[in-house]
Amino acid sequence: MSLRLAVIGVGAVGRSVVELAPEYGHAVTAVADSRSAAVDPGGLDAETVFDRKEAEGVVGSADPEDALAAEYDVLVEATPTTLGDAEPGFSHVEAALERDRHAVLANKGPVAERYADLMALDAESAGTVQFEAAVGGAIPILSTIADFGPGQITAARGVLNGTANFILSRMAAEGLGYEHVLAEAQDLGVAEADPAFDVEGTDAALKFVILANVLGGGDQVYSLADADVEGIRDIPASALDLAAEDGRTIRLIGEATADGVRVGPRLVPQHDALAVTGTRNIVQFETVNAGQLHLSGRGAGGPETATAILSDVGRLE
Amino acid sequence: MSLRLAVIGVGAVGRSVVELAPEYGHAVTAVADSRSAAVDPGGLDAETVFDRKEAEGVVGSADPEDALAAEYDVLVEATPTTLGDAEPGFSHVEAALERDRHAVLANKGPVAERYADLMALDAESAGTVQFEAAVGGAIPILSTIADFGPGQITAARGVLNGTANFILSRMAAEGLGYEHVLAEAQDLGVAEADPAFDVEGTDAALKFVILANVLGGGDQVYSLADADVEGIRDIPASALDLAAEDGRTIRLIGEATADGVRVGPRLVPQHDALAVTGTRNIVQFETVNAGQLHLSGRGAGGPETATAILSDVGRLE
Repeated sequence: MSLRLAVIGVGAVGRSVVELAPEYGHAVTAVADSRSAAVDPGGLDAETVFDRKEAEGVVGSADPEDALAAEYDVLVEATPTTLGDAEPGFSHVEAALERDRHAVLANKGPVAERYADLMALDAESAGTVQFEAAVGGAIPILSTIADFGPGQITAARGVLNGTANFILSRMAAEGLGYEHVLAEAQDLGVAEADPAFDVEGTDAALKFVILANVLGGGDQVYSLADADVEGIRDIPASALDLAAEDGRTIRLIGEATADGVRVGPRLVPQHDALAVTGTRNIVQFETVNAGQLHLSGRGAGGPETATAILSDVGRLE
Repeated sequence: MSLRLAVIGVGAVGRSVVELAPEYGHAVTAVADSRSAAVDPGGLDAETVFDRKEAEGVVGSADPEDALAAEYDVLVEATPTTLGDAEPGFSHVEAALERDRHAVLANKGPVAERYADLMALDAESAGTVQFEAAVGGAIPILSTIADFGPGQITAARGVLNGTANFILSRMAAEGLGYEHVLAEAQDLGVAEADPAFDVEGTDAALKFVILANVLGGGDQVYSLADADVEGIRDIPASALDLAAEDGRTIRLIGEATADGVRVGPRLVPQHDALAVTGTRNIVQFETVNAGQLHLSGRGAGGPETATAILSDVGRLE
């Protein structure tokens, strides 16, 4: 079935959703960035929208609010993740659900910081909330939890921040210091100019908070404030050398269990499944009846994350 | 929703389905082995059924055909995989679909050998055919393909036979010969008394044939006869030693691509994602928009495979 999407936020992810939607049989009837919007009930053309953004700095001549009021079946929330009240993302999702439309999020804020509020909106709406793209990009993490069924997966553990993993695996492979590798990662576009969100563990923690909320089935709700988080800034190259002498390495490992959420640098065997290299992500599930399960792939990137959004859209049909 | 299951075949997998069904909220209203059946519209008790099988050699006092005629919503086909006409499994599934009931298969035969016939039955029935358990046990392989959407996954590659993988990884780790490790695997219950199905590549080939059928979306249908298959019997320990000197190892790798199905021993880097050890399975997908994705876990075992069947049942609700 063809659905009409309103895409809010046109960073790499939102832009890829607009570009890939036709490949999945869907139309984009509204696009908004923070300053402007383009609305066309007949469907927008990606090239036209983004050419205009490049030339004029706006995606169209409408106001951002016009996108929220447009005709659509699914609102795609792809604005940057914010903490605390998770605004303005939360209000965008609220607007969609109050109109009995579906909401699909790449934005981690509303799911990690206001899970109970989000589920309450979902319960009262004819629309549904989905957020596979908020955890592990293209990796089908939440759909696997849903498929296994309630209570069948008891814990999640793994690497869900590609920037921190890139830095640690380069430090280990080349014997270089943190600052040196960070600068290299920034040159490559793997780390942002302000890398705090990634290297301090916040981004990974938000993802494991979301996993804890999903695994807990709403019985116990977590937010970032409940997570025990430690980043990778203070790891000396010598610690990686020492680990290597013992056949091990260091990774920024998160976990969501019945005991809560923890993220921090951990020693793992050098060839362990969790010791992925570069920007790769991996999650390891503990299951009740089927042992351990590992899922790994690209945890970030525009098209990669857009595939998770479009899979979520597919589940709404 | 609670569904009523008729479980045909009570090897390790069928037995685990009967035992785990209540945990998933379902009732088992019929169970059959090749000689007998137990039928109770109010729901059977696993312990009673299997105690009787142990004591008397039968699961109940009814005929096997009575299970097919019983009241159920979902027929679970868990009899041993057979080639060619894939009987009697195919007829069991046919009986369910002709009654507009669902059919969930662990049996690879009907899906690998008679895919077109199976899809034709599915198209004419109000019931649906599902077969996650036929490929990779507990690993959510087919549901991931479905989630990604038509055409989004272009190739599958990996290790889908735990017996062959156990033998190859033991040969590599211990420097032992094939016959020695096979005997050890038989002692451990990892290999059967007649290991031909596993070590000649047939079992892996059937799984990759199923993957090719699913990835092809029915446009091109494969069966075992179309697969290019080579087993592991003739690999000398010296070949593994030579590979190790070069940082590589040998695994029985299958692939399903637009070019068809191939299974055979391949050189892979020693620490490559595909070089899983022991009985572990892994599949690597090539995607159009999201790079490579890896899924790994337990590819066989009663409870493990039963979880895939019960996930399939969950999707029918």
